[in-house]
Amino acid sequence: MERSELIEIGKKVDALLAGEEVKLHPSDVASYLKYLHHEDAEGFYRYLKRLPKEILGEVLLELPESLRDDAIEHLSAKELAEAIEELDSDDATDLVKEIEDLDEGLERRVLDSISSEYKEEIEELIAYDEDQAGAYMQTEVFKAYEDERIADAIERLRRLKAEGELSNIHQVYVVDREDRLKAIIPLEDLILYDFQTPFATIISNRRYEPIAVKASDPIGEVIKKFEDYDLAVVAVVDEEGRLLGRITSDDIIDLVEEQATEQIYNLAGVDEEIEEEEDLTEVTKKRAWWLLINLGTAILASLVIGLFDETIQKYVALAVLMPIVASMGGNAGTQTLTVVVRKLALGEIDWQNAKRALFKETLIALLNGIIFALIMGIIAWVWFQDQMLGVVIALAMVINLLAAGFFGALIPLILKKIGSDPAVGSSVLLTTVTDVVGFFAFLGLARWMLLG
Amino acid sequence: MERSELIEIGKKVDALLAGEEVKLHPSDVASYLKYLHHEDAEGFYRYLKRLPKEILGEVLLELPESLRDDAIEHLSAKELAEAIEELDSDDATDLVKEIEDLDEGLERRVLDSISSEYKEEIEELIAYDEDQAGAYMQTEVFKAYEDERIADAIERLRRLKAEGELSNIHQVYVVDREDRLKAIIPLEDLILYDFQTPFATIISNRRYEPIAVKASDPIGEVIKKFEDYDLAVVAVVDEEGRLLGRITSDDIIDLVEEQATEQIYNLAGVDEEIEEEEDLTEVTKKRAWWLLINLGTAILASLVIGLFDETIQKYVALAVLMPIVASMGGNAGTQTLTVVVRKLALGEIDWQNAKRALFKETLIALLNGIIFALIMGIIAWVWFQDQMLGVVIALAMVINLLAAGFFGALIPLILKKIGSDPAVGSSVLLTTVTDVVGFFAFLGLARWMLLG
Repeated sequence: MERSELIEIGKKVDALLAGEEVKLHPSDVASYLKYLHHEDAEGFYRYLKRLPKEILGEVLLELPESLRDDAIEHLSAKELAEAIEELDSDDATDLVKEIEDLDEGLERRVLDSISSEYKEEIEELIAYDEDQAGAYMQTEVFKAYEDERIADAIERLRRLKAEGELSNIHQVYVVDREDRLKAIIPLEDLILYDFQTPFATIISNRRYEPIAVKASDPIGEVIKKFEDYDLAVVAVVDEEGRLLGRITSDDIIDLVEEQATEQIYNLAGVDEEIEEEEDLTEVTKKRAWWLLINLGTAILASLVIGLFDETIQKYVALAVLMPIVASMGGNAGTQTLTVVVRKLALGEIDWQNAKRALFKETLIALLNGIIFALIMGIIAWVWFQDQMLGVVIALAMVINLLAAGFFGALIPLILKKIGSDPAVGSSVLLTTVTDVVGFFAFLGLARWMLLG
Repeated sequence: MERSELIEIGKKVDALLAGEEVKLHPSDVASYLKYLHHEDAEGFYRYLKRLPKEILGEVLLELPESLRDDAIEHLSAKELAEAIEELDSDDATDLVKEIEDLDEGLERRVLDSISSEYKEEIEELIAYDEDQAGAYMQTEVFKAYEDERIADAIERLRRLKAEGELSNIHQVYVVDREDRLKAIIPLEDLILYDFQTPFATIISNRRYEPIAVKASDPIGEVIKKFEDYDLAVVAVVDEEGRLLGRITSDDIIDLVEEQATEQIYNLAGVDEEIEEEEDLTEVTKKRAWWLLINLGTAILASLVIGLFDETIQKYVALAVLMPIVASMGGNAGTQTLTVVVRKLALGEIDWQNAKRALFKETLIALLNGIIFALIMGIIAWVWFQDQMLGVVIALAMVINLLAAGFFGALIPLILKKIGSDPAVGSSVLLTTVTDVVGFFAFLGLARWMLLG
């Protein structure tokens, strides 16, 4: 954000604190606080302490992690509890989790200051695994009973909205007296009915048959549903079909960004969660683990080179050229690997069309292998004035790019098949293949054809 | 999807074609057709021809590109035009674009079969650049005038919905007689007012001040707005504030996935748009360009090695160990590069805190440089029974990992600063640095310290 925009927001924040009615989004307040923290740390804490509890929780959630932790430590358990009570249940749960990560004692004190009913709700939501739909749902929904009239439900909506209990309502969830979800009616339809009509009359229409997910469903499936059905919100039910809550598109957008980040990081051997930490030692340690695995594979490649040390001593051009073969294999393999990993994640490749993908990727790599065999063969021939050396590097190039394409596609497919994340560890496995095959093919062919 | 699910959908499709009222999403029909295409190509065309025009367009859009092209070629201009008329304007535009990519003559014939009013609308939408918000908007909105009563607007909504002109309405957009957007009222609020109230009375409330984007805004900013403000839909206006349409969260979810795919692909030197093509020659050619650039940098690294060919000949252990130094630099640099590229994309790093990010990344790389200098120094010493060789590789490791961290962060920052995409080309620049620095430091130190 531009400095001038931030100063504009600052004026609005001042107006808000002075009690004026201002249209100001918590995320803008967070941007302003972030700017303040940088420019005037004292001002940051002063503003933080004065923020109305109605927006404090949302502002905290919008702050970058390090500032949020800092802010939480400067607030009392009571202030935090009040802020949490104002949040929707999903956001409240997120904030409690953040506090838990920071200080479990503080979390206990905060939870003890929250009304017991809401505390129970939050504890139930916290219990879900982060791979489950339940972890992303909010329990605040606009619910109506089959035997109710529309007018009565609307009256309840009015009350709940006035109490600040409900917002962002797009649909009414019609349930039976056991809370089992029977129908979902969009407000745009509801508004057209005579308000004296009971819901029972309306919901016989098949178009109101509910689309719902189970709280125990993997969140990946929920995301897929949003994408396939162009949803803005989805209802969440338990195993018996009882309404528990809903998941809204804003959480899905965040999740999609987060999963993409995780995938990009995994491909490069970086841990997404650790990277968010401020503690450099943790980040360094985590990255070092990955580098250690890479060191192992690099040494393996060196052992292959070591097999041919006499050949290299007689023919030092081999040492000069050998990294080219390995590097081209690594790059071609990474292209293939990346495409296959991403298409697996997007559901464009599955086990059904896996053979086709494998064949396609191998063929592309083979074609490029032939192209670069010709190019590099000629370069090596001219460079070292040695025709046979050109032939050797050309053959090694074809072999290594072929291996790169085949294993670049096969490795993620197999990881997926055995239930692993195809983005994790696949690139190190691939580099091992392209280094070992590259050096072995090039130096082996050289020993056989140049010195044999 | 499981085979059994697909067969279940197949039964529903049959029921639909038999004229029964079935709840069936176009994306499910598309999944079934995809399965059919694989199992029974004749059946695919038979079903395609019989699909009701109300869902044909949506089904086409949900098909994978190659099947869609195949399907479009089997439909007449008239059938396509009818399907397009049933689509919302944003989807209609997408489908026309798909037809255009395939066959411009067919596109003209299709457009000529569409009612002239809708044709004009589609042509206006097609004119937007794909980086602009306008390219993703639909013109179908629920609009009301300031001086209208709620009841009259609702009556219009009823008619538009009955005609299939409007769906997925969450808000009413209140405009003046010049179509300038004055307020946005969510249906959940509208439903609570007395329907005899004129909009003018309601919209004085500041909470209805509209959040809108301009059609010419970069789509990246629109995505940011959805994420910051947790939007489900946003209004689109022209430069004078006149209401043009809206963008819904389902398009934003698709865009976020697409941009992440593009970023992942760019980092690996793969072109997202070309990869969607069926034509293997195109894919091969595009990937070959990237490999050619890589070949250039690999040769550059080889030239560095060539400077030390006599040293290597005297000391062949150097040839065995040198790929380790380069590989560790490449991996550490890729970690840094990936984190910085992604954080730039997510807005977590900007020019303000760039210096801090650069410092942090360099420090992490230096720490890991020291760790792996020790590990690799001892390994080399023991392996080749040569203490000095251990010192040489240790020093080279520190130097190369330091360079990896520094340039891994600096390269994307500079690309961003000069207005380039930090994901494009950064990895090849980085590898050039880590290869050249790695070989030069290791072989140069070796010549100086071992043979000097």
